[in-house]
Amino acid sequence: MSSPEIERLIQALSKLPGLGPRSARRAVLALIRRRETLLTPLARALSEAAETVSTCSTCGNVDSRDPCTICADPGRDAGQICVVEDVADLWALERTHAYKGRYHVLGGTLSALDGITPEDLRIPDLVQRASDAAVKEVILATSLTVDGQTTAHYITDRPEGSGVAVSGLAHGVPVGGELDYLDDGTLQAALKQRRPV
Amino acid sequence: MSSPEIERLIQALSKLPGLGPRSARRAVLALIRRRETLLTPLARALSEAAETVSTCSTCGNVDSRDPCTICADPGRDAGQICVVEDVADLWALERTHAYKGRYHVLGGTLSALDGITPEDLRIPDLVQRASDAAVKEVILATSLTVDGQTTAHYITDRPEGSGVAVSGLAHGVPVGGELDYLDDGTLQAALKQRRPV
Repeated sequence: MSSPEIERLIQALSKLPGLGPRSARRAVLALIRRRETLLTPLARALSEAAETVSTCSTCGNVDSRDPCTICADPGRDAGQICVVEDVADLWALERTHAYKGRYHVLGGTLSALDGITPEDLRIPDLVQRASDAAVKEVILATSLTVDGQTTAHYITDRPEGSGVAVSGLAHGVPVGGELDYLDDGTLQAALKQRRPV
Repeated sequence: MSSPEIERLIQALSKLPGLGPRSARRAVLALIRRRETLLTPLARALSEAAETVSTCSTCGNVDSRDPCTICADPGRDAGQICVVEDVADLWALERTHAYKGRYHVLGGTLSALDGITPEDLRIPDLVQRASDAAVKEVILATSLTVDGQTTAHYITDRPEGSGVAVSGLAHGVPVGGELDYLDDGTLQAALKQRRPV
C-alpha cells in the first residue's frame, strides 16, 4: 500500500503495548508530519537507549549505568531493600519520593501455572543480598494478587536465621477513597488492621 | 527518577497521539525488556523513515520517493483524481482495493475559525492538475463534517468551464449497519438518494 519504510515503521510501532495497527498508523502519520519535533527526537532517543540502557546486576533496575543510580547513591539507605515485581513498580514507588532505601526487582511472580520458579526470579540474588550484615529490613511490595502474595510468603521464609526484619506494605482504605466504592476484601483488611488514633 | 536516556525516551513517546505519560512508560519498559525484537527494529525503522520519507510534490501523499508510488504507477488511471483531506483517508481508500485512479491530499479542510484558506490546502495545485486534458473526473472524498463539505463545495466551484466531471462519495446505510442504530441524518440521506433495485 504505502512505501516499505512506512509499512515497517507501522509494524514496529503496532507491537508496542497499548498500540494496535490503527493507532500505529495514526502515530506514524503524526511522526511524518512533525518530523523535526517528533520523528527526529524519538529516533535519537531510541538509539541512545538501545546503546546505553542495561539491567543493574545488583537490583534488576534498568539504567544507563551498572550498578544503577539508586544502588550507586551513597545517600540511599543500604539497610533497607524493597522487593518489587517489576521496574514499573519501582518507578511508581520512586514517584512518591517517600522511600530512601534500595530496591530488588524480581522480574515477575512465582507461578506454578506458568512454570516460574524462584530461580527465574532473582530470589537467590535477594537471599544473597539480605545475608549482608548491613541489611536490616526487607520490605515486600509485591502486588496483592494470589501470585504476588505467594511470592511474598516464599521470600518471607527464606532469610532464615539472619537478623533481617521482613515487612510488607500496609493494606487498607486508599487515600481519597470512599468506603461505599471499596471492595469487601480491602474493607475487611482495613478493619482488621485498624490502629489507635 | 530513572536515567536521562530513559526519561527522554518516555518524553518522546508520550507525545505520540494515543499515548500519554503512563502508557509511554509501559511502552518503554516493553522496549527495554525486548531489545532485540522491539527496540532495535523500531530504532532502525524510525531512522530509515526519517531519512527516506517525504511528501509527494504532485499529490501530497507520503512515500519514500517523489513522485509517490501511486502517481508514478502507469497502471493507475490518470483520468481520475480522488480528493481526500488527509493521508490517513488515502490509506483507508487504498485498503479497499476498490479505486484505481490517482489522489490529491488536501492536508486539511477549509476553516474560517482556524483561518485555513484555500492556499493552505493545495487547492490551487488541484485546480492546476484538474485543468490537464487527461483528467476526466474529480471525486470528492472529504468527510461529511461541516468543514469537509464546505471544502467540497468550494472545490466543486473551481474547475470552471473545464470539461471535468465532479462527483462525491455516496451517502447511505453502512454495509452491515442496522437501521435502528443509525443516526437520523444518514437515514434521511439514504431515503432521499434511494435507487431502483
